[in-house]
Amino acid sequence: MRPVLSAAGGAEELGLLTDLYELTMAQSYLQHGMSAPATFSLFIRTYPANRSYFVSAGIEDVLNYLEEWHLPEESIDYLHSTRIFSPSFLDYLSSLRFTGDVWAIPEGRLFFADEPVLEVTGPVIEAQIVETFIINQINIQSLIATKAARCVWAAKGKSLADFSLRRTHGTDAGMKAARASYIAGFQSTSNVLAGKIYGIPLSGTMAHSYVSSHEPEIDAFRNFVRSFPERSILLIDTYDTIAGARNAAEVGKEMEALGQRLQGVRLDSGDFDRLSRQVRVILDRAGLHYTRIVASGGLDESDIYDLVSGGAPIDVFGVGTKMGVSADAPWSDMAYKLVKYDGRPVFKLSTGKSSLPGEKQVFRLRDDKGDFSRDIITLRDEHVEGGEPLLCKVMERGKAIRPLPLLDEMRERFKEDFSHLDDRFKALQGPHEYEVALSPRVKELYDQLTVEVQG
Amino acid sequence: MRPVLSAAGGAEELGLLTDLYELTMAQSYLQHGMSAPATFSLFIRTYPANRSYFVSAGIEDVLNYLEEWHLPEESIDYLHSTRIFSPSFLDYLSSLRFTGDVWAIPEGRLFFADEPVLEVTGPVIEAQIVETFIINQINIQSLIATKAARCVWAAKGKSLADFSLRRTHGTDAGMKAARASYIAGFQSTSNVLAGKIYGIPLSGTMAHSYVSSHEPEIDAFRNFVRSFPERSILLIDTYDTIAGARNAAEVGKEMEALGQRLQGVRLDSGDFDRLSRQVRVILDRAGLHYTRIVASGGLDESDIYDLVSGGAPIDVFGVGTKMGVSADAPWSDMAYKLVKYDGRPVFKLSTGKSSLPGEKQVFRLRDDKGDFSRDIITLRDEHVEGGEPLLCKVMERGKAIRPLPLLDEMRERFKEDFSHLDDRFKALQGPHEYEVALSPRVKELYDQLTVEVQG
Repeated sequence: MRPVLSAAGGAEELGLLTDLYELTMAQSYLQHGMSAPATFSLFIRTYPANRSYFVSAGIEDVLNYLEEWHLPEESIDYLHSTRIFSPSFLDYLSSLRFTGDVWAIPEGRLFFADEPVLEVTGPVIEAQIVETFIINQINIQSLIATKAARCVWAAKGKSLADFSLRRTHGTDAGMKAARASYIAGFQSTSNVLAGKIYGIPLSGTMAHSYVSSHEPEIDAFRNFVRSFPERSILLIDTYDTIAGARNAAEVGKEMEALGQRLQGVRLDSGDFDRLSRQVRVILDRAGLHYTRIVASGGLDESDIYDLVSGGAPIDVFGVGTKMGVSADAPWSDMAYKLVKYDGRPVFKLSTGKSSLPGEKQVFRLRDDKGDFSRDIITLRDEHVEGGEPLLCKVMERGKAIRPLPLLDEMRERFKEDFSHLDDRFKALQGPHEYEVALSPRVKELYDQLTVEVQG
Repeated sequence: MRPVLSAAGGAEELGLLTDLYELTMAQSYLQHGMSAPATFSLFIRTYPANRSYFVSAGIEDVLNYLEEWHLPEESIDYLHSTRIFSPSFLDYLSSLRFTGDVWAIPEGRLFFADEPVLEVTGPVIEAQIVETFIINQINIQSLIATKAARCVWAAKGKSLADFSLRRTHGTDAGMKAARASYIAGFQSTSNVLAGKIYGIPLSGTMAHSYVSSHEPEIDAFRNFVRSFPERSILLIDTYDTIAGARNAAEVGKEMEALGQRLQGVRLDSGDFDRLSRQVRVILDRAGLHYTRIVASGGLDESDIYDLVSGGAPIDVFGVGTKMGVSADAPWSDMAYKLVKYDGRPVFKLSTGKSSLPGEKQVFRLRDDKGDFSRDIITLRDEHVEGGEPLLCKVMERGKAIRPLPLLDEMRERFKEDFSHLDDRFKALQGPHEYEVALSPRVKELYDQLTVEVQG
């Protein structure tokens, strides 16, 4: 399985997919002989509204990127043409590779605000220059995995399918939405390339255009089940959902006569609670107890929660747009901050945007039942009795520590973690805030640096 | 200039970046000998909150995609492995190309709800199978161009720079945000690859890490201006903005002694209105009247509007996250609907999701001053006296009509269009709705089909 990295004319050019200042700072570091080791810490400062946890996702893409990071001749030529950079810096850049270490909270695990989900240590130029891509990938993948986790929680065991590709923000986001939602427990995706690249099971039904290209509707249903007798899900709302359900039931009976079974029908508009009950009755009266009802069309976790809690007989939810763009939280304030340079812990104090100094570890503590009770952010060399360290070394001297976890392992890890997080942190509205403490040494270091700076 | 298309292991695999149902429907069409011409219409049904116009963007990516669309052997092999498709269909697919025609409202032009921004006509399989990618690209590019246009309007002539790459939804979105915001009037981007691929001017400053890797702050400023005496913008909020401004002024004076000029300082946190005034005074008292003030950090169009209207002495706004994810409207209900099949106008009636039948044109009417007064959606063969037809033929029999417009031409077109849209449609909150009428023939056709279906 190869990573899905590139957005731009092939992975070759990805080294330029960065902010200009990463490169200008690099030139300045080089010119002033600053090549000491630096550690950067990636974390989310504040929860978006109604969030109380995050799901780690995107680490694998970052590792693949770091291993392959380089600037080919064509990129160097472009940089030269901007007249911003010195020839000696561009010469240096042309042979630069990433040689640092990376620690991360593995994909699929839960993490919380202020906790470093990833830390990079390397010569300052190398560790700085990869900032933009690292945030670009882990921010959105974690946001989407978190949104998908909310849907999974709301669905209480019902199946979820990713239908988001058309409304995600571009091609890369479409791939990552399929991947992230699968980690969080979705069961399939409509995205065929995600099926190929990630091995995610595919699902799909039919479009309104298929129905409207036939006349009458029942001809569309008959044609489709003839093509796919084993996997037809008929879309019944093109003109009128109830009439559509009757047509589908008729076709289902015709299939039975051939020893086939109609797999499902799909509702895509209207009052899903009422319609699903009416459609269920129509199908059941025809003896099609096995035919499943799929609902899709603008659904988010709150809709799913209400439908499932209310007992609507919907078997599968197709979730698209609102999951794929993390509609109520399309961004976070994820930041990648220098925490140590040349052996010296550093931080920033900017209003509302301060950061914690030093290389870190996060320990998770559990109660008697094994449920998560609280996390403690420590310096990396600290130990917390009875706590599980979450950050693992995932790259050493520029090489990922392989084998990388499989997607299904991430999915299992999420399931396990999520089952140990109490429901009060999972509420869709106004969840409790999970306790994240700072170790005395982290606090002390922060206070000490603050005094020094404010002097 | 080559397109930035791929998100996934190279453009080769893009044919699979589609929803499964596009392929299953294709197989069924093929099996039933349905190969008649079909026309699909792409439009946004409803305005997101506080929107009253959209900016067309993304057409070029679609044209390049359609020209290059094919499924290489590796893709066909994967489809075979799913056991969903018949060998004869896969054989057909392996030599399929897109041979249809496309009409579109050119990039940079304004369009409104219900108006087709693009129409595709071709054999039904070809026109159907490209649906997912077309929506994926035009939806987000148009949403971001629209969000950027709001920022441009709010900035009243002040400069805007795209700083969004790290928080966009993946790599492709990062490229498209740079492109779309440039079309809408942003002046530069921090995204180096967008500079290379699209020729957009680059801009950038420095990060907090550069400051905190030095000690004290003024050493960072001195080192940076030595590296870039002609293009330094110093970030002054790492510890304390006022103290940072004094340090920057000191460095600015040192530069003057060398015959150099400090280009700017950047504020990235705190109360921008108050701080920019205080910093302006500090710079002016040092005689650095030419040193510009850049503000960035969570800004959206409302913040910019308030700062500019209030007279804050900010020269450049760096706009990142909220523009790059279209934060208050991260999705639209853009749809791609069959409107004609085999010469027969078709539509759908689904609750809240109906569509207008037939191939269309949109005419724009102007008042005496040349300002837009209203649009009329007609059938494609209609003519509206004094109206300007907006949909142009951009592809014929699978070949884009070249040369394609340059990005700077799109930018000019936007500027021209936007200058003729009255401010009441541009208000950031509660804008007026622009009048879009249906021609009598469109209305008649819709009513007639409704009667037929419901009858």
